[in-house]
Amino acid sequence: MASSRFSPTSALHAELAAVVGEDQVLSKEIDLIPYAFDGTAALRQDPGCVVFPANVEEVSAIVRIAARERIPLVCRGSGTGLSGGSVPSPGSLVLGLQRLNRILETDPLNLTMHVETGVITAAIDEEASRHGLFYPPDPGSIRISTIGGNVAENSGGLRGLKYGVTRDYVMGLEVVLADGERVFLGNKCVKDAAGYSLKDLFVGSEGTLGIITSILLRLLPRPRARRTLVATFPEIEGGALTVSGIIAAHIIPCTLEFLDRTTMDCVEAFAGVGFPRDAGSLLLMETDGEPEVVERQAAAMAAIARQQGALEVRQAETEEEALRLAQARRCAFAALARVRPTTILEDVTVPRSRLAEMVRFIADTAARHRLRIATFGHMGDGNLHPTILTDETDADEMERVEQALSDIVDKTIALGGTITGEHGVGLAKKPYLPRQLGDSGMRLLRQVRLALDPHGILNPGKIF
Amino acid sequence: MASSRFSPTSALHAELAAVVGEDQVLSKEIDLIPYAFDGTAALRQDPGCVVFPANVEEVSAIVRIAARERIPLVCRGSGTGLSGGSVPSPGSLVLGLQRLNRILETDPLNLTMHVETGVITAAIDEEASRHGLFYPPDPGSIRISTIGGNVAENSGGLRGLKYGVTRDYVMGLEVVLADGERVFLGNKCVKDAAGYSLKDLFVGSEGTLGIITSILLRLLPRPRARRTLVATFPEIEGGALTVSGIIAAHIIPCTLEFLDRTTMDCVEAFAGVGFPRDAGSLLLMETDGEPEVVERQAAAMAAIARQQGALEVRQAETEEEALRLAQARRCAFAALARVRPTTILEDVTVPRSRLAEMVRFIADTAARHRLRIATFGHMGDGNLHPTILTDETDADEMERVEQALSDIVDKTIALGGTITGEHGVGLAKKPYLPRQLGDSGMRLLRQVRLALDPHGILNPGKIF
Repeated sequence: MASSRFSPTSALHAELAAVVGEDQVLSKEIDLIPYAFDGTAALRQDPGCVVFPANVEEVSAIVRIAARERIPLVCRGSGTGLSGGSVPSPGSLVLGLQRLNRILETDPLNLTMHVETGVITAAIDEEASRHGLFYPPDPGSIRISTIGGNVAENSGGLRGLKYGVTRDYVMGLEVVLADGERVFLGNKCVKDAAGYSLKDLFVGSEGTLGIITSILLRLLPRPRARRTLVATFPEIEGGALTVSGIIAAHIIPCTLEFLDRTTMDCVEAFAGVGFPRDAGSLLLMETDGEPEVVERQAAAMAAIARQQGALEVRQAETEEEALRLAQARRCAFAALARVRPTTILEDVTVPRSRLAEMVRFIADTAARHRLRIATFGHMGDGNLHPTILTDETDADEMERVEQALSDIVDKTIALGGTITGEHGVGLAKKPYLPRQLGDSGMRLLRQVRLALDPHGILNPGKIF
Repeated sequence: MASSRFSPTSALHAELAAVVGEDQVLSKEIDLIPYAFDGTAALRQDPGCVVFPANVEEVSAIVRIAARERIPLVCRGSGTGLSGGSVPSPGSLVLGLQRLNRILETDPLNLTMHVETGVITAAIDEEASRHGLFYPPDPGSIRISTIGGNVAENSGGLRGLKYGVTRDYVMGLEVVLADGERVFLGNKCVKDAAGYSLKDLFVGSEGTLGIITSILLRLLPRPRARRTLVATFPEIEGGALTVSGIIAAHIIPCTLEFLDRTTMDCVEAFAGVGFPRDAGSLLLMETDGEPEVVERQAAAMAAIARQQGALEVRQAETEEEALRLAQARRCAFAALARVRPTTILEDVTVPRSRLAEMVRFIADTAARHRLRIATFGHMGDGNLHPTILTDETDADEMERVEQALSDIVDKTIALGGTITGEHGVGLAKKPYLPRQLGDSGMRLLRQVRLALDPHGILNPGKIF
């Protein structure tokens, strides 16, 4: 939306081209358009220039040039981010990292894989599966997004409850620092107490502390069995209470996904999976692991859903049916995005015990501000995606959207939650972060940022 | 061993006493002796003064005084550290934190517990077990050490392979910063992408970035079954190869503990558990979880040990026998410490696939430098504790000890390992850290340290 532009001088263009090759530098206005936005609604900023390095040496060379010239640098994988993290900063040089796309090593003895930053996340689990291994994090964008983007945003997914998030699988990172220096942080050891955990500082730093060029990932043995169930409930709270009941029974399934009535309707219209038309909410439950345990847990979860008044509990009989049910949930965002011109996807997360209260609050907020909000999300993680179906050209409605977002954020914080569970802060959540972290938390972030990027050239204007 | 001393002036003594009470300030030389060392051999430094705050407000008030006067501050829990992290810095004020010992909240719905920093670690799992829950990290010192010390050093234990280390259970931290300001980092959400993961920066920071006053911990459902096995092997490598075989079979047991011949002899002499006298190495294996899975995994691990030439594989028939076997391993350090005047406990960790090579190298190093080195450790984590049985008053032998330690560190790094898996850097590993992290890694550590503690008053001289 801002208009300030940086155009590389011909000398600078030549210098960049000397690093990556003439055909890997884009600076014509028309070529830059696809790089002006990511997956976040209502955010747009043209970059000054886009370059596509092929390897870490080229990344380092570009960073040295940018550091010398004090040009802002913004990294981009597949541009699927949902908080504006890879939307160009004004006057920035965008580093397109998708050419760093090699799987460097799979090490079945140590249960690790070393990949370059531009590898598509789904390819990692596919490679792992060839060795009977498993890479659990599965963000909604898994077939498009890059692992480097996942690490920069600390992406989550549908299996967080049992398997955690991207951070939990990062054992090491190669990073190009703000001055162009390369450093590898971490190793293949499952225990390491040597110095501060700098890799954990870079995971989730949204491109503001350094540029991640390769990642050493931890893998797990692949679960031998899986069971998928779907339960529908007459009221919106039924799913939330079933989740609490499952945790209270000390069952930790891999997936507990929630869809409200609006989301179910949109998914049904989009994908025609046969969801019932009379339900107020739906819960997709998945358990994986050893066969006997999976059977027992599936039966227990079905019983808990029935206790909470489920209208119907259906267990997938075949692998295909299970995949179809999971896929129906995976297409929720795409289904919702068709309904109105602008789709604003929220990412608030609350302690699990406060889920029913939060879900009800969101529904009330929609009514109060006369908005259509569909809520779905990773209920096992307390991670909800209230999705506002709106139109950014309608100024009056957008004002009510802003009020609703602000109300949802305040309620989230009041319940001990976080303003973003898995999408990051970027530009979209930047105004709200001080409410969550307070002055002292914000000061700490700024101190760390200043220490690692004193001239502020790395993704400036994001997070804070 | 250094002699510089800081003695509080009577005005300063009065100011400290006004915060914590006269009886909670120690400054007489004789009272300070117990606070001059921790669990690390051959390290000693008298503090200038020791104070015992009762709560976070008092900690904050003391830090403000120390910041104003530029007095170094060293935190201390139970003083069981194994890298000298809580050995006083010269001229320092020691903060004894054991009075902050309340369990503030157990939240079974969200699977969390909030505890003050001075709670004994074993008490946490005991409290969790009352709710059918489980706090997995179990450092050897679990019955004495405090959770704050565990967090500051990112302690490990016997269950790292399956359950990870202390860091993996920290959801939030209350920290008093170098200027006395209080901040709470984290929350009860299982996903949180709001800003840098500052809590991960403080975990394992060894008291050099802030003072941890309370911790929000993640709990798990308590495993319903457990099986304990012991296998003995004729050669030293048998245990290492069995570990590799178990991982290759995609079994992730909770514990795979290794004892070499020397350690077995000392444990047998100390505890008389009936270890065989003809074995070269011993592996203690423990699997936990659902009953059927545990039975199947125990049988599979026994078969793998036999394939690797085990002399004997014994499965504990009763809970008491299992506890006795595990206890025998837990007393390894105590048993070794009786043999010679000085016991230097190493903590190197290598990728699991390099274990057999590392174990053999340590044995060769002992022979080459004419030293007695007993090796035991958490083999499932690649985490070995080669323990040098020596005498710090013998200058010639200590020179050979230094050479052996240096050789072991170099080999560890050459194998892609880490110089400390779970004890931290402190004073003991400080000389070796630059070999592992390199110039750029060390520079990053210093930048972060300088940003958070610009005057260097927090545990100065540790890590770097």
